[in-house]
Amino acid sequence: MTRTRAGIVGYTGYSGAELVRILRGHPRVAPVLVDQDDRPVTSQPFASTDGLEHVRMSEDALRGAAIEVVFLATPPEVSIALAPVALAAGARVIDLSGGFRLDSAAAHERWYRARHGRPELLGEAVYGLPELHGAAIRTARLVANPGCYATAASLALQPLVATGVIDRASGVVCDAKSGVTGAGKRPTSRTHFCEVAEDISAYGFFDHRHVGEILAATGLDEPELSFMTQLLPVRRGILASIYFRTAAPTTWEALKTVYDAAYGASPFVRVYPRGAFPSLRSVVGSNHIDLGIEVDPGTRRAIVVATIDNLIKGAAGQAVQNMNLMLGLDQTCALA
Amino acid sequence: MTRTRAGIVGYTGYSGAELVRILRGHPRVAPVLVDQDDRPVTSQPFASTDGLEHVRMSEDALRGAAIEVVFLATPPEVSIALAPVALAAGARVIDLSGGFRLDSAAAHERWYRARHGRPELLGEAVYGLPELHGAAIRTARLVANPGCYATAASLALQPLVATGVIDRASGVVCDAKSGVTGAGKRPTSRTHFCEVAEDISAYGFFDHRHVGEILAATGLDEPELSFMTQLLPVRRGILASIYFRTAAPTTWEALKTVYDAAYGASPFVRVYPRGAFPSLRSVVGSNHIDLGIEVDPGTRRAIVVATIDNLIKGAAGQAVQNMNLMLGLDQTCALA
Amino acid sequence: MTRTRAGIVGYTGYSGAELVRILRGHPRVAPVLVDQDDRPVTSQPFASTDGLEHVRMSEDALRGAAIEVVFLATPPEVSIALAPVALAAGARVIDLSGGFRLDSAAAHERWYRARHGRPELLGEAVYGLPELHGAAIRTARLVANPGCYATAASLALQPLVATGVIDRASGVVCDAKSGVTGAGKRPTSRTHFCEVAEDISAYGFFDHRHVGEILAATGLDEPELSFMTQLLPVRRGILASIYFRTAAPTTWEALKTVYDAAYGASPFVRVYPRGAFPSLRSVVGSNHIDLGIEVDPGTRRAIVVATIDNLIKGAAGQAVQNMNLMLGLDQTCALA
Amino acid sequence: MTRTRAGIVGYTGYSGAELVRILRGHPRVAPVLVDQDDRPVTSQPFASTDGLEHVRMSEDALRGAAIEVVFLATPPEVSIALAPVALAAGARVIDLSGGFRLDSAAAHERWYRARHGRPELLGEAVYGLPELHGAAIRTARLVANPGCYATAASLALQPLVATGVIDRASGVVCDAKSGVTGAGKRPTSRTHFCEVAEDISAYGFFDHRHVGEILAATGLDEPELSFMTQLLPVRRGILASIYFRTAAPTTWEALKTVYDAAYGASPFVRVYPRGAFPSLRSVVGSNHIDLGIEVDPGTRRAIVVATIDNLIKGAAGQAVQNMNLMLGLDQTCALA
Repeated sequence: MTRTRAGIVGYTGYSGAELVRILRGHPRVAPVLVDQDDRPVTSQPFASTDGLEHVRMSEDALRGAAIEVVFLATPPEVSIALAPVALAAGARVIDLSGGFRLDSAAAHERWYRARHGRPELLGEAVYGLPELHGAAIRTARLVANPGCYATAASLALQPLVATGVIDRASGVVCDAKSGVTGAGKRPTSRTHFCEVAEDISAYGFFDHRHVGEILAATGLDEPELSFMTQLLPVRRGILASIYFRTAAPTTWEALKTVYDAAYGASPFVRVYPRGAFPSLRSVVGSNHIDLGIEVDPGTRRAIVVATIDNLIKGAAGQAVQNMNLMLGLDQTCALA
Repeated sequence: MTRTRAGIVGYTGYSGAELVRILRGHPRVAPVLVDQDDRPVTSQPFASTDGLEHVRMSEDALRGAAIEVVFLATPPEVSIALAPVALAAGARVIDLSGGFRLDSAAAHERWYRARHGRPELLGEAVYGLPELHGAAIRTARLVANPGCYATAASLALQPLVATGVIDRASGVVCDAKSGVTGAGKRPTSRTHFCEVAEDISAYGFFDHRHVGEILAATGLDEPELSFMTQLLPVRRGILASIYFRTAAPTTWEALKTVYDAAYGASPFVRVYPRGAFPSLRSVVGSNHIDLGIEVDPGTRRAIVVATIDNLIKGAAGQAVQNMNLMLGLDQTCALA
Repeated sequence: MTRTRAGIVGYTGYSGAELVRILRGHPRVAPVLVDQDDRPVTSQPFASTDGLEHVRMSEDALRGAAIEVVFLATPPEVSIALAPVALAAGARVIDLSGGFRLDSAAAHERWYRARHGRPELLGEAVYGLPELHGAAIRTARLVANPGCYATAASLALQPLVATGVIDRASGVVCDAKSGVTGAGKRPTSRTHFCEVAEDISAYGFFDHRHVGEILAATGLDEPELSFMTQLLPVRRGILASIYFRTAAPTTWEALKTVYDAAYGASPFVRVYPRGAFPSLRSVVGSNHIDLGIEVDPGTRRAIVVATIDNLIKGAAGQAVQNMNLMLGLDQTCALA
Repeated sequence: MTRTRAGIVGYTGYSGAELVRILRGHPRVAPVLVDQDDRPVTSQPFASTDGLEHVRMSEDALRGAAIEVVFLATPPEVSIALAPVALAAGARVIDLSGGFRLDSAAAHERWYRARHGRPELLGEAVYGLPELHGAAIRTARLVANPGCYATAASLALQPLVATGVIDRASGVVCDAKSGVTGAGKRPTSRTHFCEVAEDISAYGFFDHRHVGEILAATGLDEPELSFMTQLLPVRRGILASIYFRTAAPTTWEALKTVYDAAYGASPFVRVYPRGAFPSLRSVVGSNHIDLGIEVDPGTRRAIVVATIDNLIKGAAGQAVQNMNLMLGLDQTCALA
């Protein structure tokens, strides 16, 4: 049985390295490292890229190497430039950046504050949240892998919005916290150990890039959502605390039923028993999203706590989940 | 000039040790260690209690040692038992526990799930938030030092509620995060390094003990406030992210004006310039509460981020601030 | 193909939980949880013990459940009491404690400061360092799995001592540092987050329990070895910095050759290229021991840096490696 | 009483900021910020430089501003260029870099791998270890403030070497560990939170720049000292574990006596009681160096554990201690 050859562009970043790690354990796929310039990156002793094949990032090289799937673990502007190259080489593309997540050039410009160089691809790109858009992902040529915060918030909120559970007039609060890998591998004063350790700081008030995705994925309107992010002194993981009021008095069981209906067939969504709540530890290292619910029936106050591993369900794991769907494989293949 | 002799009960806990540290630097007060049983606790090499006088916790001993102020850094049930002893000895009492913070035995039972053994003292006790209740504190015989979460949340919310800025019908969310000293010095599985490091976990949904204080201090009603706490992998500090809608379209400057009017004369409240926000680093080691504001005028969404050092402004520092007021000293004395 | 049934006693501790995790992925072994009293421990939501069979810790129960191998992840005194029970039930035993590591009751008493209740088993027990004692392990009925520090130090030192590389008269220094899981899961003031974070402290000067093992495994004499341990603010991993003088002027290549000769066939030992050195990151999550060498030929000064994951190569992983040898399997089975 | 005006060059780095903090609390000195180019650095809200005077780094400006002491918290090559400017302006200079620590251009070139641009100043510069060279420091025009590792190692070793306690033929091992502020404020891949957290890595085998200072300060010869450094996942503090053999069988009390004789009059050196050892916590935030001793009389093995705050006793605090001596003040002034 031949393996599908999958190229990874940006394999030295955090998400790219995680892709390499996951795909090395995939029984049906062979990872190939795609170098953006002529010199392949030298690997560390015993690093995870040892022994893997390298190919240059060009239409001819990808075609020559029979690459069928290309993962772009690159910044949005790089992904926008490279996706057409990979598509031209006949490969299907899974882009981990925000380059193709929004459905119009105007929306892209609103949230990324940059013009989109390839707006014609936005209509074709499928937003890759497998629990919500599995059918479209299966046949997609270009999948926009969701942002980490957006994955946590959208999966927690979409079923509640869709079924009318939430009193949208009162607004929804999403207080999100992320580990430092979410800020990328490039050293900055913001990721310096001495600036992060023993601290937590808030940023991205209302206006984080992922908000646009969340609105599109959940159906909420911008004025209804108060979203803020905070950088935690941990390496991996996102915990999103989501507050809202229910449209009518309801119960824990009723909310549980909504999630079960939406995600009962989704292998990576786990709803916690009453009184139990997920932490980062619950999900780090896995492709799961864990959900804990608290509701005060009398006052209609409700909280959902969602946790994911930002590099797995929030990036590389979800990308492989999307690839599995695109290749007609079991979506859990190579994912714990 | 003689120094006021101030006794510290519970000086080996985190708050008590911080009291010792601060009072050793106080120019007008002499700290005395009060031992609850006969044997004084042995101190570590070069520890901060070296050379301090010890006295037993009894009416006679306190009176004999001319103790004028007693700090109780003890659990609520211990404080409730010891406060009458100290009062009987003629001392004024500052209790750092939750023993006397609520104004009725019923409220105490509601939030602490225990009967109050000395309900007759609840009427006399003054809630010790100096920025709001300075006049009453000056003459109080028994001051209930506020909880750490309550200090951050109440100081951020009270002026906004009092001036009608907040659309209370939409609710207020307080997503609070605390360092591990907030969970106390006693080793438990929850404070084990390996359970805390690289993680964050949520607890205290709606029902945290400090909620009762916040409602009383701010005038909010219970159904209006969604409060949750999370344990951070840091040692000290609280960051509270507070979300609400404004009753009418408003501006950053308008909110700033509200805070300036409330706290312009308060030396420990700092409101950040537009676009800047406090972190734990901003306040750890000091008695300040720092506030950052974000508001989206068109949609009436607003966020206030409040940070304090949970052991200083949230405990020992505020207790000394209260003592300074009670003794007629400058409230900043010995506090950075 | 039937799976060997392997019982795990102490499966709720750090090493025991790691055994469960590893054995769940083992293709030839079925893990069974062994409860020391009548009530099985309740597991967390989605915990790693979900769905596993439970059996009581008794000769009859083990025999009835057809348990062929028993792992004891228990304190030394418990292991000494339980090993005979498991052996009587016909099982082979791998003890992760220090109960059977030393070869005489006198040595046990010297290093553990306790009398050994089953001295007759000490002669039979095989010290389970697979890289050095593979043949004896294959046929052993009772294997004493080495201590975490001893694994790192002994594997680094034994080939150098055996080949006469080290100038023993000058002494050997082993400065070892461990993550907090090495101190166990029980909450103590020493493992409290606030005592560990942002600190490092030294303990176990000369006299750590593992020194006896290291002397026995390497052939060094007690006065030749200066061993000290330090607790790091990390969860997992040991880094041992080993300093010595070479008996004669020598080179990096010569030391490399000694290790290659000793460990060339050992799949879990990696010697780093010149100028590169292992860190905790290099090994955490794997069963490897990584070695980095520095030597100053002219002055005969040399350093070896050894790193392992204290819960894997230092405990559960090595225990599974031993089990693989005992069952005639590839020693890397289920181990990354 | 007029205050001495002290300029601080490099006040935005970790050591420079610590200088600002300490000098703001100094009763006899007024700190002035010295800017290396025309635009003063903008400070953060409520930062520690608020309200301080700025002056440009030039001979005329320093003279015009009546600066009597200049602290250089700059890299060695910058300090070597700026020290003559400050001296020409009539100021006395305390350099926190390695620019003037070694006593010859050859030694500088050996350890810093760079030619020294002002070798004529090396003869005049006084090595600023107050506990050992107080008299020369008092009258010095140019003081070379010691390196952080060198401070810990030299103060621990010098009295032992000077009194012949150490068996130098067996060698001395100094296994040193530092917090990340020791690596400076500039973001690099080595100081990225995700590279530091949950890890420890070794570097600087034998050849760390500070070794030259240690040899000069202690009288040890290079082949006798095995020195290695490790980066800890903490922000501040150095712990140096020093191993040696005693020249003759000796006792804990004898080593204690040696330290008492050397440091009995030194206010910042604390020798721990038998069986107690310092940690980072013992010294972080203070100008102390703490020493713990362990000796095994029969085998002549000995360990000394030394801890300092790398930014205080290892940098800014020691610089202020030196300044105090130079100004004829009590050396503890403004230092806790």
